[in-house]
Amino acid sequence: MRFITGLIWLFSVAVSAEPLLVEKQHFTLDSFTTESGQVIAPVNIGWEAYGKLNADKSNVILITHYFSGSSHAAGKYQQDDATAGYWDAIIGPGKAINTNKFYVISSDTLVNANVFDKNVITTGPATTNPATGKPYGLAFPVVTIGDFVEVQKALLDSLGINKLYAVIGPSMGSFQAIEWAVRYPERVQRLVPVIGGAFMDAYGAVKLERWAYPIKTDPAWHNGDYYDKGQPIQGLTTALAYITQDAVHPMGFNQRYPSPVNDKNAMQDIRASLSAWEQLMQHAKVRATYQDANHILYLVRASQLWRAGMADNWQQAVAGIKAKTLFLPASGDLLLPPAFSQHSADAMKKAGNTPQYAEIPGNWGHLDGLVNIQSVAPLIETFLNQP
Amino acid sequence: MRFITGLIWLFSVAVSAEPLLVEKQHFTLDSFTTESGQVIAPVNIGWEAYGKLNADKSNVILITHYFSGSSHAAGKYQQDDATAGYWDAIIGPGKAINTNKFYVISSDTLVNANVFDKNVITTGPATTNPATGKPYGLAFPVVTIGDFVEVQKALLDSLGINKLYAVIGPSMGSFQAIEWAVRYPERVQRLVPVIGGAFMDAYGAVKLERWAYPIKTDPAWHNGDYYDKGQPIQGLTTALAYITQDAVHPMGFNQRYPSPVNDKNAMQDIRASLSAWEQLMQHAKVRATYQDANHILYLVRASQLWRAGMADNWQQAVAGIKAKTLFLPASGDLLLPPAFSQHSADAMKKAGNTPQYAEIPGNWGHLDGLVNIQSVAPLIETFLNQP
Repeated sequence: MRFITGLIWLFSVAVSAEPLLVEKQHFTLDSFTTESGQVIAPVNIGWEAYGKLNADKSNVILITHYFSGSSHAAGKYQQDDATAGYWDAIIGPGKAINTNKFYVISSDTLVNANVFDKNVITTGPATTNPATGKPYGLAFPVVTIGDFVEVQKALLDSLGINKLYAVIGPSMGSFQAIEWAVRYPERVQRLVPVIGGAFMDAYGAVKLERWAYPIKTDPAWHNGDYYDKGQPIQGLTTALAYITQDAVHPMGFNQRYPSPVNDKNAMQDIRASLSAWEQLMQHAKVRATYQDANHILYLVRASQLWRAGMADNWQQAVAGIKAKTLFLPASGDLLLPPAFSQHSADAMKKAGNTPQYAEIPGNWGHLDGLVNIQSVAPLIETFLNQP
Repeated sequence: MRFITGLIWLFSVAVSAEPLLVEKQHFTLDSFTTESGQVIAPVNIGWEAYGKLNADKSNVILITHYFSGSSHAAGKYQQDDATAGYWDAIIGPGKAINTNKFYVISSDTLVNANVFDKNVITTGPATTNPATGKPYGLAFPVVTIGDFVEVQKALLDSLGINKLYAVIGPSMGSFQAIEWAVRYPERVQRLVPVIGGAFMDAYGAVKLERWAYPIKTDPAWHNGDYYDKGQPIQGLTTALAYITQDAVHPMGFNQRYPSPVNDKNAMQDIRASLSAWEQLMQHAKVRATYQDANHILYLVRASQLWRAGMADNWQQAVAGIKAKTLFLPASGDLLLPPAFSQHSADAMKKAGNTPQYAEIPGNWGHLDGLVNIQSVAPLIETFLNQP
């Protein structure tokens, strides 16, 4: 669970007396053909579930994870884990996503960032290519949000689940949730895209490219072929620092990091670093120990290519969504601002759907979709309890 | 004027039939001691002026330029110049800053970005250190917004000007304008900080550090000592691309740059670039031909260290401002959002000042302070005509 510590290091997570205990499970797909036409064989991913599957398998809620996240959406692996899954505030017995009622399932995506976290199972550039016995590196095919969805579908098929009461996910998880509702409109009854939307724009895609840049320009990257030499740690750490800043609103950031006023060296030496930068990099360094630089590049690319339906017209794609939908952007989000949700909802409305819309308040911007999700718990609960 | 083309390449600037013709002038200060306690000898800077100085020298308006700007605030050097100075929409005969009435003066700062533009005169790492006969490189001292102001003051002193009817500047120019009003409250009668404020915060300082990063990590940077080898062109170009993106709101950016939907290669090859990124870099490359990488680092540092009064308490510093003040942030600004102006105005109000405040509308974010300044021209005119 180090990735949780890494991501929400800013917050002390309220821990209930009786944590939901969860277990990581392993799913293998012998062969998978990507959207780009390449074959990955086999695909391994991790998954976990909370609550009980009912007899007719009609109570399933799928949670799709964000860029830096994993399948650990709720609960703890052990009683004494320091933190619980990222949405533990809303997933559990009696909570908004009530595990007394629903069977909640979540899986690690392909190219998951936290590939070296012992609680994450994924397949990507850092995992072994059976053809060579070595890590794939950049021989791993480009994968898309659509591919993430297809792997999840294979997992659900293997469990005999062919209807989803709801799909809910934050950020890159909202992309997957929307893609589920687009590809399988008959299977998805409810859709809750949190801090996200149905497309990526040029501005966002370039911002993502800026996360990739420090990795690609780190001499230790070696064009992605570094697995016998050690990670491009400077590039990876810098990328993770950028990700943190871009996910946080200045209000929160300035609460957490020191003003440059006290950086006395900075006025004497142009090479001197600011303490805010140093601290941000130190926090990122912790996450860099269990994340992989190439995986970040692949997640960047999947996010850059994102548009509902993965074809030329995302508006047309979302027109086919049949799910009842609730968009939940965060008011202060500068990474995937509310406009993404609004444009997505507008396109659905044009097609006759009636998506609901509400904003998550807070000082943390994009990150409010994780750390302040409790504030919209009643909305989610009401939405899920509507027939 | 290439820097103007570079910065507002997005826009066709309306050209009046009879452009104001201006001439670059040269000011030399034999020796200057920086805030960091170093001596620069001599300092050379360029300046230009529009309108006529009246007999008692009481009609002077100082325009302080932005990060990527220069003293060319208005007019043309030659009738057939493709574009005019950056605020030509509001500076000129009969315009909001009426040169029939005011003597408008503007100077290049120290470490001006456009050091290789023939119309810019500045002193910085890329200019010759008389002690060695070679460019200063990183031996050039760190300079501050306070230093920019002191050099301007020396210029004005040399012209016998000791009162400013107004100081007006956008972005980093707003920092200088505020510092003028803080250091010389008796000299500055009116103050118009446009798209800026009285301090830099941790969030902004780290964002600025991200502009420096591609330069510092470019192997061709050679720790700032590249003048006999050629610029770190990749790092500089990347920095300039980031600056452009950060100065533009997504609405404007997405109008100008292509969506990733058509980037077919990007799905086949993880190394393939996005066309939006390529175009942004191509635009930046043009500017890189007349800007200097080290100068960007020094401007970044000056901006990171900015706080009114350059001491520990900017609120106390602005409490001493006597100038009538009008803050003009841009509504969609993501680089120096309206909150900077609001906090600055609040601190002045606490001290009994009564700053005015209005927002510049538009789709271009921070850049609206340049390209959409016409929209607040009547406000500026009214403000300047108040007794």
